[in-house]
Amino acid sequence: MALAAEETGILQEAYPTKARDGLSNYANSSTHERKATVFAKELIKTAIAEKLDKEILLSSKTFCIADLGCSVGPNTVLAVQNIFEAVESKCQYYLHELNSQIPDFQVFFNDYTSNDFNLLFTSLPNDRRYYAAGVPGSFYGPLFPENSLHFVHSSYAIQWLSGVPKEVMNKNSPAWNKGKIHYSKSGDEVVLAYKAQCDKDMEQFLQARAKEIVCGGLMVLIFPGVPNGTHHSQSLPNMILELLGSCLMDLARKGIISEEKVDYFNMPTYLMSPKELEAAVERNGCFTIEGMEGLPLPLPSDSSAVASHLRAAVEGMIKLHFGEKILDELFDCYRKKIDENFSILKSGNLVNFFFLLKRRAAN
Amino acid sequence: MALAAEETGILQEAYPTKARDGLSNYANSSTHERKATVFAKELIKTAIAEKLDKEILLSSKTFCIADLGCSVGPNTVLAVQNIFEAVESKCQYYLHELNSQIPDFQVFFNDYTSNDFNLLFTSLPNDRRYYAAGVPGSFYGPLFPENSLHFVHSSYAIQWLSGVPKEVMNKNSPAWNKGKIHYSKSGDEVVLAYKAQCDKDMEQFLQARAKEIVCGGLMVLIFPGVPNGTHHSQSLPNMILELLGSCLMDLARKGIISEEKVDYFNMPTYLMSPKELEAAVERNGCFTIEGMEGLPLPLPSDSSAVASHLRAAVEGMIKLHFGEKILDELFDCYRKKIDENFSILKSGNLVNFFFLLKRRAAN
Repeated sequence: MALAAEETGILQEAYPTKARDGLSNYANSSTHERKATVFAKELIKTAIAEKLDKEILLSSKTFCIADLGCSVGPNTVLAVQNIFEAVESKCQYYLHELNSQIPDFQVFFNDYTSNDFNLLFTSLPNDRRYYAAGVPGSFYGPLFPENSLHFVHSSYAIQWLSGVPKEVMNKNSPAWNKGKIHYSKSGDEVVLAYKAQCDKDMEQFLQARAKEIVCGGLMVLIFPGVPNGTHHSQSLPNMILELLGSCLMDLARKGIISEEKVDYFNMPTYLMSPKELEAAVERNGCFTIEGMEGLPLPLPSDSSAVASHLRAAVEGMIKLHFGEKILDELFDCYRKKIDENFSILKSGNLVNFFFLLKRRAAN
Repeated sequence: MALAAEETGILQEAYPTKARDGLSNYANSSTHERKATVFAKELIKTAIAEKLDKEILLSSKTFCIADLGCSVGPNTVLAVQNIFEAVESKCQYYLHELNSQIPDFQVFFNDYTSNDFNLLFTSLPNDRRYYAAGVPGSFYGPLFPENSLHFVHSSYAIQWLSGVPKEVMNKNSPAWNKGKIHYSKSGDEVVLAYKAQCDKDMEQFLQARAKEIVCGGLMVLIFPGVPNGTHHSQSLPNMILELLGSCLMDLARKGIISEEKVDYFNMPTYLMSPKELEAAVERNGCFTIEGMEGLPLPLPSDSSAVASHLRAAVEGMIKLHFGEKILDELFDCYRKKIDENFSILKSGNLVNFFFLLKRRAAN
């Protein structure tokens, strides 16, 4: 058995788990936009109703659910509650065949060790009808015993790479990402380095899950992505990161931070297209794709909301690399740039993808 | 399925999980005294070697260990490592019958939600060869799915009651514990109320574990107790709490706190005798007792060490009930009393009990 080598050092620390919501999940910022979340929930319910094999319910005394990259907050608890209720209601339907024995439910909340599990545990409802456990560690490695999971859920998490690709921070590499903090407007070498990192991460992710999920078990992946054929630079989250990068370069030009410091700061996120995930699933070979949906999100109507969301998302990482002092000036510049570029930003692409995978019986 | 109603409110908050070590586990305070811990470890190894049925290893693809009331700190990790290694070495012995397949190991660290799971997760060794999970909640209720555990360990935890017995804080009850904070020098009614609370807690504890532990599974309980036939007031941990109570009453006499405030403060601990645990196991009926040892501890040689240990143990609870202001004066008084009474304290009884239970096959 090979076990999860915990991600350590600066990169792990650099992922404030709160960031996830801020960076890509506009969906909860207003009643209007919450519709996207509601839609994802409905897709999960339908997936369980239509694609979860009866045999799995009949053969498991305990039905195990894992939420990978769970973060903390009401969304974490609601997502799990939604899955639990859908499976339970399916059990009710087969109550006769189950000899009136609904299985026990055990939910594993996973995230990096630096996630606030204390807060997460406090926020679990007291009247929950499932057994809860927290599992620390990177989902790019093994986290659970073999054949122990029946349903895996991961939302707004797999766009975070396991780390920044090494080449983009190597002066002597053609993929050196000088003067930029992300790949979407960089040269092909940089984009390829990011893509290679994502491919490797997805390979490890799917390999680990293939071992952990029982045959017939389901996995739902929700992530912000780029539609097939759309250039990375047309994606709104990427556009916004580019603006942040240009603000950092402005500070460097003013001598407030060194340009070299910017060269060595890169965001460890990559937005996949559906085709890229499909290819990863095919290479892995242990899952079938049972469903895919694009969930286009309404573009934000308010520039200051975008700015403050994004500040919440990236502030922790910036502080860690550049120190606290620059924060106010940086985000001042940032807010202005977002405001100035708002009409361009509104042309950006903002879409989440929903994938439903099923663990194959063979292999 | 009935699920753990989380203990809430002041009592739960009042259990600083660190307290456990301080209150009863002198065993780690010096090399000399660490021998007691080493002895307990050896008992666990022997228990696994001699009493863990081969069939359990052969029938489980994942071997599940739970540490109940795990707290945080090096002892938590070491205790689990000891169990893991002993079971793994037994698997090596039966490697041929296991078709060279050592099972996966999953370790569940349980404690109250208020335990610092963040710190616990950080302290887990990166090269651990087991899957780790944290499980928040009171072990006086269900925590795990049915038939899901193979080995349960609980050390220095079950002497903490689920709460203070209500009668001792009821002015109109004959068990009202006026002017005292513990039962060991109180009237029979108070002692009986504490004992009844302990009986009820142990009933719930054993009932929950009987469901969770597979037939043939083992449970090791280590707790500070009183030898059969020894009066509660002769136990060193109890004597020390009595001194704390008398210091609080001194403060009340000086008008620094109200006497009523002392009346409503009681320590939720009860030290069982082996006979009491045996009776609880017999009433429950689902376990056999496979082994019992008394682990007498060397009496502390240094009064100031006792005082500082105990301050660490109870400070949180005192602060919560009486406020921060009284702490220095209280523990000043406390240190003096421990010093004055040290020769009497040295006559006190300090012993941990080790029980090995096995889940019966029937019922």
